[in-house]
Amino acid sequence: MRTRVGIIGGGPAGLLLARLLHRAGIDCVVLESRTREYVERRQRAGMLEQGTVDALRAAGAAHRLDTEGLVHHGIELRFERERHHLDFPVLTGGRTVTIYAQTEIVKDLVALQLAAGPPLLFEAEALAVEKPESDTPVVRFLHDGREQTLVCDWVVGCDGSHGIARAAFPAAAGRTYTHDYPYSWLGILAEVPPSCDELIYARHERGFALHSMRSPYVSRLYLQVPNDTSLDDWPDDRIWDELAARFAIDGDWTLNRGPITAKAVTPMRSQVHAPMRHGRLLLAGDAAHIVPPTGAKGLNLAVSDVSVLAHAFTALHATGSTRLLDGYSDLCLERVWQATRFSYDMTRMLHAQPDGDAFDHHLQLARLRRITASRHAAAELAANYTGLPLPT
Amino acid sequence: MRTRVGIIGGGPAGLLLARLLHRAGIDCVVLESRTREYVERRQRAGMLEQGTVDALRAAGAAHRLDTEGLVHHGIELRFERERHHLDFPVLTGGRTVTIYAQTEIVKDLVALQLAAGPPLLFEAEALAVEKPESDTPVVRFLHDGREQTLVCDWVVGCDGSHGIARAAFPAAAGRTYTHDYPYSWLGILAEVPPSCDELIYARHERGFALHSMRSPYVSRLYLQVPNDTSLDDWPDDRIWDELAARFAIDGDWTLNRGPITAKAVTPMRSQVHAPMRHGRLLLAGDAAHIVPPTGAKGLNLAVSDVSVLAHAFTALHATGSTRLLDGYSDLCLERVWQATRFSYDMTRMLHAQPDGDAFDHHLQLARLRRITASRHAAAELAANYTGLPLPT
Repeated sequence: MRTRVGIIGGGPAGLLLARLLHRAGIDCVVLESRTREYVERRQRAGMLEQGTVDALRAAGAAHRLDTEGLVHHGIELRFERERHHLDFPVLTGGRTVTIYAQTEIVKDLVALQLAAGPPLLFEAEALAVEKPESDTPVVRFLHDGREQTLVCDWVVGCDGSHGIARAAFPAAAGRTYTHDYPYSWLGILAEVPPSCDELIYARHERGFALHSMRSPYVSRLYLQVPNDTSLDDWPDDRIWDELAARFAIDGDWTLNRGPITAKAVTPMRSQVHAPMRHGRLLLAGDAAHIVPPTGAKGLNLAVSDVSVLAHAFTALHATGSTRLLDGYSDLCLERVWQATRFSYDMTRMLHAQPDGDAFDHHLQLARLRRITASRHAAAELAANYTGLPLPT
Repeated sequence: MRTRVGIIGGGPAGLLLARLLHRAGIDCVVLESRTREYVERRQRAGMLEQGTVDALRAAGAAHRLDTEGLVHHGIELRFERERHHLDFPVLTGGRTVTIYAQTEIVKDLVALQLAAGPPLLFEAEALAVEKPESDTPVVRFLHDGREQTLVCDWVVGCDGSHGIARAAFPAAAGRTYTHDYPYSWLGILAEVPPSCDELIYARHERGFALHSMRSPYVSRLYLQVPNDTSLDDWPDDRIWDELAARFAIDGDWTLNRGPITAKAVTPMRSQVHAPMRHGRLLLAGDAAHIVPPTGAKGLNLAVSDVSVLAHAFTALHATGSTRLLDGYSDLCLERVWQATRFSYDMTRMLHAQPDGDAFDHHLQLARLRRITASRHAAAELAANYTGLPLPT
């Protein structure tokens, strides 16, 4: 097989890139190692920045999002048994965020792709990227029970942090910056209406808790737990009791409980791979960087990357110039490091630090109090949360 | 001896408190263990918030400060060989800071005190505070070669972090929160005009450097050095060369060099003692809390404490009510923790972290870049730097 742009990975980054390239008249192929059913069920993020919504609209992939997405005008911070609302439109001059699950974005993009888009192969497992330094890099992959090759002008790795694209970078061609956090998230999906219209970020002495939702009927809730926590130690009742304790305030508020339909423990890591390009191999999304979920930046960074990339490929297609592609890595990394900083700060501010002492504890409270007391501190959080401007 | 308020320590906190009490008609005595010459030469801070200047004016002690103080309209951040100006009046709606050395404040207050104020005893070494829980706490002290007693209604410890006032708190009556930083400052005074009209906070891979001044003729400069650094390893030329390297930018700028008249290495520590009151013994300034010098908050917090305290004693004197004194500790500690947070963040953002890795390094740069890119981030720094509102 021969294509202009070979895309490894059929998550939101790869699928959106394919869609944007297709609309620009640029030939591409997407290789996804899993089945369609699997990728459409993979539970991930759900908080979309305004820029992400705009990018999905620009790709013609926002029809259902515009109908079903829940527009949020702020978040709530809870600490010391008090609730504090941050009003995003007031703090940012009108910006909001939208709750719409990543699984739904993937379903929308898969449907568009299979109906009218460029080839999207499921159960096509990329094995290697060969000759990334040459003008015709090759992706070797397994599909239909046999090994095949995809000869490309360019290859884009959208295959996540454990994918083969990043592994195809020679050791001397990049560097990985990593920070592991000393805690994990125990996340649940529950068949129960959200207990509140907004996301709640709760700091409690026993640990962080997050109240979120996937729809008006499905709640998504998280608890900070120690690393290596076993789900066996967390029967449903214990999860609900702990969530209720961490969200408790002085005053009326009730956590809605209901059947738990999914449970998982996820470690927390920050990672940046730089540069995001080697020869004609480019990385986008989780393949290049991962953030802890506290700032809700992972999916948004992936969309930002592929928006920049689609723009660069379009310019190449129109003018023959690789100038924008040459600037891709630096441009994206600037925003990536800002999102990494924000995610790190949100994480550190809200989680009980197992290695922390009473000094750290008071410092956390001072930080939270400052955000609730200072317009500038609140506006800075809101600006980062709703998303810094897309690089242009 | 008998007095209403016994003040231990004749630094700026104790002297200003005595001055404010005297003006309110409240009898007090200041005990200072050192000689007048010693306290007037003790090199300390020099950056006064607007509220500190106002408090000195209210005490009638700002005549020379108003003539000789250097009003600063901002600071400069340097990193990656670039300079970035933060304009405080623009960012804060008109606020400035004033450079006027602590030694000069002490000289001004000592002169006023000896001319017209309540008793100020030099070489009066406080030995113990007895019966702080009673209505007549007693300070035992050595003076004129013999042990004497000062019987008080109230005792205020302004005797620093190693003083006897804090030590007089029973173990169960308070808690100390401490954070030690893994680096120190090597500070110099030099007989040379400042190289720039403003303070320069420079982040360099080899460590932090600060350009400051005491007057139009005297520069004050600091270098981050490892803990336990010996001055023997830092001849003057090495100090100047290292300062020049850390302040270097792309473009014209020269560090003025001149004779170094003082040199010292100071460790960096954050410490908060809470509560700041036990019975009729109250703590103010460094006796209750210390901050690393990066945020220039130590002297300002001390002035804030004694302003609140003078107000509370005045209310007690006028009405017989201890309500304000009862609220003293909570009120001050709120501001103290905010200044502790700010000093910690400034310190961490600007110093090379000996225990840091490449991830931390990039995070620091992202923080600095954000401050230069975001009005809100810059305004939040400026608001903290020029001083949060005095508690009322």
